[in-house]
Amino acid sequence: MLKTLFSGPASRRAVVFLGLVLLPASAYAAGSSETALTFLWIAVLLMLAKLSSLVEKFRQPAVIGELLMGVLIGNLALVGFTQLDPIKSNHIIAFLAELGVIILLFQIGLESDTRIMRKVGVRALLVAIVGVAAPFALGTWVVGPWLFPETGFNAHLFLGATLTATSVGVTARVFKDMGALQMSESQIVLGAAVIDDVIGLIILAVVTAIVTTGEVSVGAIGWITAKAFLFLAGALLVGQHAAPLISRQFSRINTGVGMKFSLAISFCLVLAYLAHVIGLAPIIGAFAAGLILDEVTFKDYDSLEIIPDIERALIDAPPASQRKIRDVLNHHAEHHLESLAGPIGHLFIPLFFIYTGMQVDLKTLFDLHALQIALVVTLIAFAGKLISGLVAGPVNKWIVGWGMAPRGEVGLIFAVVGKQLGVIDAQTFSIIIIMVMLTTLLTPLILSNLIRRQQRLMPDA
Amino acid sequence: MLKTLFSGPASRRAVVFLGLVLLPASAYAAGSSETALTFLWIAVLLMLAKLSSLVEKFRQPAVIGELLMGVLIGNLALVGFTQLDPIKSNHIIAFLAELGVIILLFQIGLESDTRIMRKVGVRALLVAIVGVAAPFALGTWVVGPWLFPETGFNAHLFLGATLTATSVGVTARVFKDMGALQMSESQIVLGAAVIDDVIGLIILAVVTAIVTTGEVSVGAIGWITAKAFLFLAGALLVGQHAAPLISRQFSRINTGVGMKFSLAISFCLVLAYLAHVIGLAPIIGAFAAGLILDEVTFKDYDSLEIIPDIERALIDAPPASQRKIRDVLNHHAEHHLESLAGPIGHLFIPLFFIYTGMQVDLKTLFDLHALQIALVVTLIAFAGKLISGLVAGPVNKWIVGWGMAPRGEVGLIFAVVGKQLGVIDAQTFSIIIIMVMLTTLLTPLILSNLIRRQQRLMPDA
Repeated sequence: MLKTLFSGPASRRAVVFLGLVLLPASAYAAGSSETALTFLWIAVLLMLAKLSSLVEKFRQPAVIGELLMGVLIGNLALVGFTQLDPIKSNHIIAFLAELGVIILLFQIGLESDTRIMRKVGVRALLVAIVGVAAPFALGTWVVGPWLFPETGFNAHLFLGATLTATSVGVTARVFKDMGALQMSESQIVLGAAVIDDVIGLIILAVVTAIVTTGEVSVGAIGWITAKAFLFLAGALLVGQHAAPLISRQFSRINTGVGMKFSLAISFCLVLAYLAHVIGLAPIIGAFAAGLILDEVTFKDYDSLEIIPDIERALIDAPPASQRKIRDVLNHHAEHHLESLAGPIGHLFIPLFFIYTGMQVDLKTLFDLHALQIALVVTLIAFAGKLISGLVAGPVNKWIVGWGMAPRGEVGLIFAVVGKQLGVIDAQTFSIIIIMVMLTTLLTPLILSNLIRRQQRLMPDA
Repeated sequence: MLKTLFSGPASRRAVVFLGLVLLPASAYAAGSSETALTFLWIAVLLMLAKLSSLVEKFRQPAVIGELLMGVLIGNLALVGFTQLDPIKSNHIIAFLAELGVIILLFQIGLESDTRIMRKVGVRALLVAIVGVAAPFALGTWVVGPWLFPETGFNAHLFLGATLTATSVGVTARVFKDMGALQMSESQIVLGAAVIDDVIGLIILAVVTAIVTTGEVSVGAIGWITAKAFLFLAGALLVGQHAAPLISRQFSRINTGVGMKFSLAISFCLVLAYLAHVIGLAPIIGAFAAGLILDEVTFKDYDSLEIIPDIERALIDAPPASQRKIRDVLNHHAEHHLESLAGPIGHLFIPLFFIYTGMQVDLKTLFDLHALQIALVVTLIAFAGKLISGLVAGPVNKWIVGWGMAPRGEVGLIFAVVGKQLGVIDAQTFSIIIIMVMLTTLLTPLILSNLIRRQQRLMPDA
């Protein structure tokens, strides 16, 4: 068997040697057990994710099922089942999960209506500012001195900074699952979350500077701020003005659907990379790419395979029917990029949420004292963001406030930086982790209920 | 900047620590430079692949452009440009490339007409047997003693074994690019290549046994053979009999397109894994999965998003037009899985071919003596497979013969095993590598011309 022949260390050396000479991809194609095993893990995660989407029968968004399924299979070691644990440390699955959240934000960008977004822009900015200021103040001057009196001001500062974070991925997925991306509330939250990431970046730089050097360089902060705003403003200006140009170039390329789709995905990945270079999260770049390409309609109609076939079948139909059906075809052709991105999303987005769930360690909940403090911190974390909903204008303020609540990956980064700077001790770290977990896992449940109620009140929204 | 904050070894340790505690996927989402860089590399490869597909303007299949672009950018170090070299050793890109060839063979399976395949089955078996026997005999008893007189019989045996290989990926891609998958020639080559992989597996086991122990255990060979044939026969039987069952189950699942698509991809990945476990190449499993699901038509029609919209627009149309358009919709609904797999293919298949091209080391061509011998070996490698075309029956024998010619990854594995067993010396290894390169790179050029000529002769085929 190839497998047996390839399993010894000598053969591994030979494969590594070959890798330096020629065609390692192809050699791996038949040789690597790790690759084949990763195929299996992807299949297992996909199937479990799809099984978990049965929560949709109970009118819950699929993301809740995926996160909970992740928590479940990630903690099976507690009952002695460790067979799935290699997934947690599989770097390829970690990458694919991240590709999933990139694709998610790209799709969200594509589906976001930039006109609505521009209309709610000022309110999103307000929500973002209050959504940063309120949790920061609560964390630094209320929760810190009250619940962590033994740690110093710097720790309180970091706690406050951690509470400012907003994770756009979870909220965006809930809005998407509920078909509510076009709601004003949704666009305000998305806009505010993006702005939040920029503000968060600045806060992190400032807080880190205070903790490490005791002072803050205004120049450095100005530079970070300028870069981040230039990136976003640049992306949105391109969206507004260069889109028709890109659109025309795209229409001139006649080598089929694959070409346009690949260029669109490449564009998304390049912006994700650029966002990272500037110091923003890659998902912000992917979101910006989606916003830009949203305005690039794929005017050339023939790219949708089904259309020429239907055109042929339409020849004898009366003009009125022809017109109606052409309208449908036109609409679908214009949204073609979204439907092309769909299958890739189906494949990788569930990986992100189930993988995120898998990383939740239920053992952190076993320390009763820490858990009590964490629950209070979590309540205040929710309160801080709910306040931001108050400035959202004439919309459902609860949806906006809850939409801002999940801390997710952003809050986590703050906690890690604080820990590595030695400002946050191990117990405070655990408490922050529980707060991040709870805001991330509970928000989808509450938010989806609020959205459903709103949709019942205003069926046309 | 997050990036700066995360770049030190201390921060790396912290992230690794966090990885053991909670949410590393999310932490990486904003933190890892390597991940962001991989996004950039994927975008670069995709854009270069799409640029190279301009060869289609010269009526060449896109795969030639991708392979040559890969060779070009993989050897830029020769002119001092090494900026792209990190791509070659990027494990994630290696994995995605392999996922690409898995998706390719899955698509080929989906598009293969199992009725044609069954009709040409016996001829495919004949072609496979001759396509193994002729090159093996030529290698072991002609080329070996003639060109490598100083090496022993065992080396000749391995040379013969290497020449038996058939790489289905390259040929299948050419047929697909040329829209020729439904040709009898194409189905004979695909069938023969799959059978070849099974025979190749057995030959490799036998040759290895002879070289290492001097004897062959009939039991071991029987067991390998039985496993491989059971797998394939099992897969095809399932395809024939269980497909309607799976189809019915799929139709009962009403949670939308994503579900069915994810289950289909999972099925493909599981079969790829099982093929690997049995000792076959994972791509054989993916191909079998495609063959099976090809017969699973997605009868529930509503899954194609455009259909309900058109149905609504059709209401007032006369019955004749309605019938015609419904036929088109039905056809598309049944081939829905193919069109869903399309975008994923667009993304990952070019990665496989450009990455394969990148691994070609042009420096191996600089040794004039080795190159001369390699050219003769290559000619004989072509001759051995062209003979197999003679038993293909009443079809274009040249297309079948050339279709069997690329050695690709399979030939390479043989060479590596021979080298690690110490049977093949460094120079012979280089010569085999050049032969693999040339049969892999030249075949698409020749094959596409033959197919084009055939298509001109028989425009309906």
